Amino acid sequence: MAIKCTQIELAARPIGDPKHSDFRVVTVDLPPVGDGEMLCRIIYQSLDPYMRGRMDDAKSYAVPVAIGDVMGAGTVAEVMESKNARFKEGDIVTGMFGWRTHIISDGAGVRKIDPTIAPISTAIGILGMPGMTAYVGLLDIGEPKAGDTLVVSAASGAVGAVVGQIGKLKGCKVVGVAGSQEKCDYVVNELGFDHCLSHLSDDLESELANVCKDGVDVYFENVGGKVFEAVLPLVNSFARIPVCGLISRYSHVGNFPGPNLLPKLTRSILTNRLKLQGFIITERWDRFPEFEKDMSSWIKSGEIVYKEDFVDGLENAPEAFMGLLKGKNFGKLIVRTSEDPTR
Amino acid sequence: MAIKCTQIELAARPIGDPKHSDFRVVTVDLPPVGDGEMLCRIIYQSLDPYMRGRMDDAKSYAVPVAIGDVMGAGTVAEVMESKNARFKEGDIVTGMFGWRTHIISDGAGVRKIDPTIAPISTAIGILGMPGMTAYVGLLDIGEPKAGDTLVVSAASGAVGAVVGQIGKLKGCKVVGVAGSQEKCDYVVNELGFDHCLSHLSDDLESELANVCKDGVDVYFENVGGKVFEAVLPLVNSFARIPVCGLISRYSHVGNFPGPNLLPKLTRSILTNRLKLQGFIITERWDRFPEFEKDMSSWIKSGEIVYKEDFVDGLENAPEAFMGLLKGKNFGKLIVRTSEDPTR
Repeated sequence: MAIKCTQIELAARPIGDPKHSDFRVVTVDLPPVGDGEMLCRIIYQSLDPYMRGRMDDAKSYAVPVAIGDVMGAGTVAEVMESKNARFKEGDIVTGMFGWRTHIISDGAGVRKIDPTIAPISTAIGILGMPGMTAYVGLLDIGEPKAGDTLVVSAASGAVGAVVGQIGKLKGCKVVGVAGSQEKCDYVVNELGFDHCLSHLSDDLESELANVCKDGVDVYFENVGGKVFEAVLPLVNSFARIPVCGLISRYSHVGNFPGPNLLPKLTRSILTNRLKLQGFIITERWDRFPEFEKDMSSWIKSGEIVYKEDFVDGLENAPEAFMGLLKGKNFGKLIVRTSEDPTR
Repeated sequence: MAIKCTQIELAARPIGDPKHSDFRVVTVDLPPVGDGEMLCRIIYQSLDPYMRGRMDDAKSYAVPVAIGDVMGAGTVAEVMESKNARFKEGDIVTGMFGWRTHIISDGAGVRKIDPTIAPISTAIGILGMPGMTAYVGLLDIGEPKAGDTLVVSAASGAVGAVVGQIGKLKGCKVVGVAGSQEKCDYVVNELGFDHCLSHLSDDLESELANVCKDGVDVYFENVGGKVFEAVLPLVNSFARIPVCGLISRYSHVGNFPGPNLLPKLTRSILTNRLKLQGFIITERWDRFPEFEKDMSSWIKSGEIVYKEDFVDGLENAPEAFMGLLKGKNFGKLIVRTSEDPTR
């Protein structure tokens, strides 16, 4: 009997915020496992802000998801049946399997996970793409030095939380910006940032100036919009701004009202000799071995902690994703698609 | 009898475009030459867009000129009398002597010029600060590769003209943006750029798109404003944008009208993995020896040509400077303060 796979497809390109009707839940029969292939059952599926960009048809770094295609995502899965020499039944693997319950894979881009290092869900979190994004973006582009002031937006998120903790390990003063008071408290008390401000404040700019008395040397940009604008007047000479994400802007439609702040930015780039640089982690995968070594050791020693926010059931992925874009998650957002055999 | 020095001081901070009343011409008696000092007669004085920034009191990379201080400038001068062991009467030197006819100098920051290499005026032009700005900004930040499309604003200016010619030597397709038709013709016919467009055009954006069929890999920013905005939709993945100057913006007062283009830029930085970086040439002076070697050889071989725009008499410096900010000069703008003994 054929294996049934439930999957979530892009039904329509969102205009502004995504809504339920932009997604479609479909159940299909999978073909038998062919030579060189394997059947995988998805256990955990990542939800990340970048997925919003893939839903648009705009020019971007990645080919957009086509209407009717399954939404893409990093996942952790168990091999149920294998005719692929690299994998055997029972292996826990990670790969870009997408928003679905099962898949027939030829093993390309799939990597086996050692479940003894850390919980397997971390392969799509702190030990996977978001963790590595933080590591490479901060170290390679942000170039933090001891004594620097580092500001991190989306500070309780999957990337921001790691950026700030690495910043502390490197001797920076770290200031987070997050949403709710609960998140801000977590960022200071659990993650060890020096300060955390709320972007919901009416006067973020002066609050930020108040805690960044020596200016800002590194701003790790995850959100865009008002946080960026609040940081801009505070940047020091030679500040570095890794541009990692712009979650506040992804669903924006049309022009932004004036005044036009572009000339203010370019003037600051010139007079302060700033470096702004965008990056995409998948293009920097050569850094994975060093990242994995460092991060595993920091997790083992407790120097870096992480928080996961689980949502049960694939059918709840669209709702959770819409919440992610509004900052409703608290920690790395993960869909638990099926039971984790290692817990 | 004391030597008389005529000098131009900052009389008032300009609001918007500088005007004559912002400058004051003063004649002073110089003291006698003391031990370790020398008397220099200025021959050539540079006029550069960056001087506009120094007239403001805003936070910038350099201490502003104080009201009543002599305006700063790079100069070429002849030593008239010397009690400094490093220099002797008749030496031709270059130093930051400012907008004046004579100076008593202790030799700090002063460098002797060899008049047999090139005309001595080039020490404040192609073989001096503007030439080196082009060299370092393009090679170190712009990182041009053969086959890249390089766009250069202020293409007939002291920096832009050199940027484009070095770009051609490195195998780039080079597109200039300048003002008048005469300048555009010069940029293509004399400097060898592939194209040159006028920023006076009503439709720079589509004209630029038309000549940059393969997009833009390097944009050397000298002007800000509409040229930057026309380039932005054309940038390729991994484009580099050295931010060298923003001449169109220096005298702007107040906010800029919307729409706000900042989010458009940050989105492009992210999706195209752009690098924008500002720089100040005086902080990169370690590159001078290599620059001087390369540039001297390119000038000698005729691979790089240059154009100087002389204005006679220190009293005409304010008028010429005001014209520079409006693009009225054609080539490197130089005040001929007194007779050149080497010509």
